[in-house]
Amino acid sequence: MISTTPHPATGSIKLANKPTPTGPDELKKAILSLLASGRGDEALALCNSILKHEPDNLAAKQGAEWVLTQLVPLWHVPMMNEYERNKAFHDGMAALITPDKVVFEIGAGSGLLAMMAAKLGAKKVVTCEAVSLIAETARQIVERNGLHSQVTVLAKPSSEVRIGVDLPAKADILVHEVFSSELLGEHVLPSIEDAKARLLKPGGAVLPAAAGVMIALVGGDTLGKNLYVDESFGFDLRAFNAINPRKRPIYREDLAPTLMSDAVEAFQFDFQNDSSFPAAQKTIDITSTQAGLCYGVIQWIRVDMVEGVRFENHPGQPRAVSNWQHTIYSFMEPVQLVAGDVLAINATHDRTRPWFELAQAAALRQ
Amino acid sequence: MISTTPHPATGSIKLANKPTPTGPDELKKAILSLLASGRGDEALALCNSILKHEPDNLAAKQGAEWVLTQLVPLWHVPMMNEYERNKAFHDGMAALITPDKVVFEIGAGSGLLAMMAAKLGAKKVVTCEAVSLIAETARQIVERNGLHSQVTVLAKPSSEVRIGVDLPAKADILVHEVFSSELLGEHVLPSIEDAKARLLKPGGAVLPAAAGVMIALVGGDTLGKNLYVDESFGFDLRAFNAINPRKRPIYREDLAPTLMSDAVEAFQFDFQNDSSFPAAQKTIDITSTQAGLCYGVIQWIRVDMVEGVRFENHPGQPRAVSNWQHTIYSFMEPVQLVAGDVLAINATHDRTRPWFELAQAAALRQ
Repeated sequence: MISTTPHPATGSIKLANKPTPTGPDELKKAILSLLASGRGDEALALCNSILKHEPDNLAAKQGAEWVLTQLVPLWHVPMMNEYERNKAFHDGMAALITPDKVVFEIGAGSGLLAMMAAKLGAKKVVTCEAVSLIAETARQIVERNGLHSQVTVLAKPSSEVRIGVDLPAKADILVHEVFSSELLGEHVLPSIEDAKARLLKPGGAVLPAAAGVMIALVGGDTLGKNLYVDESFGFDLRAFNAINPRKRPIYREDLAPTLMSDAVEAFQFDFQNDSSFPAAQKTIDITSTQAGLCYGVIQWIRVDMVEGVRFENHPGQPRAVSNWQHTIYSFMEPVQLVAGDVLAINATHDRTRPWFELAQAAALRQ
Repeated sequence: MISTTPHPATGSIKLANKPTPTGPDELKKAILSLLASGRGDEALALCNSILKHEPDNLAAKQGAEWVLTQLVPLWHVPMMNEYERNKAFHDGMAALITPDKVVFEIGAGSGLLAMMAAKLGAKKVVTCEAVSLIAETARQIVERNGLHSQVTVLAKPSSEVRIGVDLPAKADILVHEVFSSELLGEHVLPSIEDAKARLLKPGGAVLPAAAGVMIALVGGDTLGKNLYVDESFGFDLRAFNAINPRKRPIYREDLAPTLMSDAVEAFQFDFQNDSSFPAAQKTIDITSTQAGLCYGVIQWIRVDMVEGVRFENHPGQPRAVSNWQHTIYSFMEPVQLVAGDVLAINATHDRTRPWFELAQAAALRQ
């Protein structure tokens, strides 16, 4: 519920007129002020200007690094190198793009998908990127690959893109990839509602056409040791579980989660056919397919590009390079199951985050 | 360089006198205010009081979860379940503790190490924990294990512990485990300087007695795909590397990093014998032991409890449960090496973070 995204400050900060901060504390303050007012590029420039004269200034070096981690999250590079993801977008676009089509994309990143669309023969591709440092880099990459006459990179969020100003007319195809590991964290739902209403021709294609938040009951001893504490060296540590956060991203692909139920599509979003995506709440009965200790629910995503072209980061298929993680929603206590047990899971999303938990007073209803 | 630790606000927030926030935005504001003024416990209580009357209030549920992730980082549970770490502390304490010894510990966590010290026969164990929610939980755990007469948990940072108030007299043994993955991130150096000067008898034992920041040159194709982008689908994406952060924690243990040099102890801290630990800067020549593409430096930690009892999370030994990660410091560009090549690495620490990079103008000096 709490965003760490920089937001515009109400007052203006006239840092440019001040002398360059010299001490580490002063520099830190200046960086935080600039980031808080959405001026990360200036914070980076400030650090780099210090490093130009003092190449060993550790505070400036770490400051620049910190600004970069805020502006350019670490998932970008694995994402660009994730073949299955790229291939699914490529094949989906190949099925839709013809030489008369104008493509509008939400979320340029490196410009990779926009360049793919251009190479696939689109008449014109306009893509937008909210982080200006990334947008500027995407422009360089598009230029380096000789596609600057076909691909335009706008340094703004899609909500600020205007027909007649940024985009000559409504587009034929809307491409989007602003999915977080939980699907909804990068505000994909409001972005698509807005873009479909303002920037896409009536009946235009949306790619991906649909996506789902997938869950299954999960167990596994090794995974469990990362989620729950029982005893250690003869001491009963279970009271700690009450203050342990329920939700945990699993960056590791080697923990061998045991899927204890079939996969369930908890929430499905039909981007092609629907125009609004309200918050939702439901209870889902999930039947255990095997005996064992169930620690909670494991969540992943499924993305349908076009009919027949699907990407899914199913936890049963470990990936060497992946920008999307699986997320565990732990129960308060692990539940011992036998095959055929049914657990009632409360599933909720508020348009930006899903949430899963064992339904209150949910007994094992064998 | 920028800490996300809550710090005390200068003005007081009289939220307790205000009506309970009802809307999600109002609740979010209240939570942020309380956290920013170091009152996370109250933020949690606020969410829980709403959930008592509205058990389905998603904003309150996610708010409580978010506060917990701020107060109780996700590494706690894997740490408690990491046998090798616990065993090393246990064996180190077993070598030092006799029935006449008073133990003071920095960083209680669940109370596990303090309870170990008590079971090993210490006369008295006093431990402190800066996060009051965790301190309260540690007290419950100590009580549940019947050790409350031997173990006292103070809800304060070690810098606020006073002789004659919190601790009857200076301790015989100082136990500490406030190591981050990069060793220094949880302010272990100033904490030990302070505790040795004020809270430990002259000549008292410090456990761990020493620790080191370890590095080696690193390569490996799978690891590389997570660090660096070259081309994808025929497009040259290399310009993106210039804005990609250099430092990356590697949560995964399955990326098979190739160590391309012997291990080097970049920084060593002798907690037992030294009383101050200043910032440091040096250049380290590292000789490649094999041919291949070197992406940068991989960093891990080595902890010497007492003579002969060592913990080390060497990247060559993947761990199923680990609270400490390896960290990669990528070079701007990968460097092609043959065995015998020497790379000059600039190594720096400012007492809270190390930093490693290829020395400027460092040519391959074969």
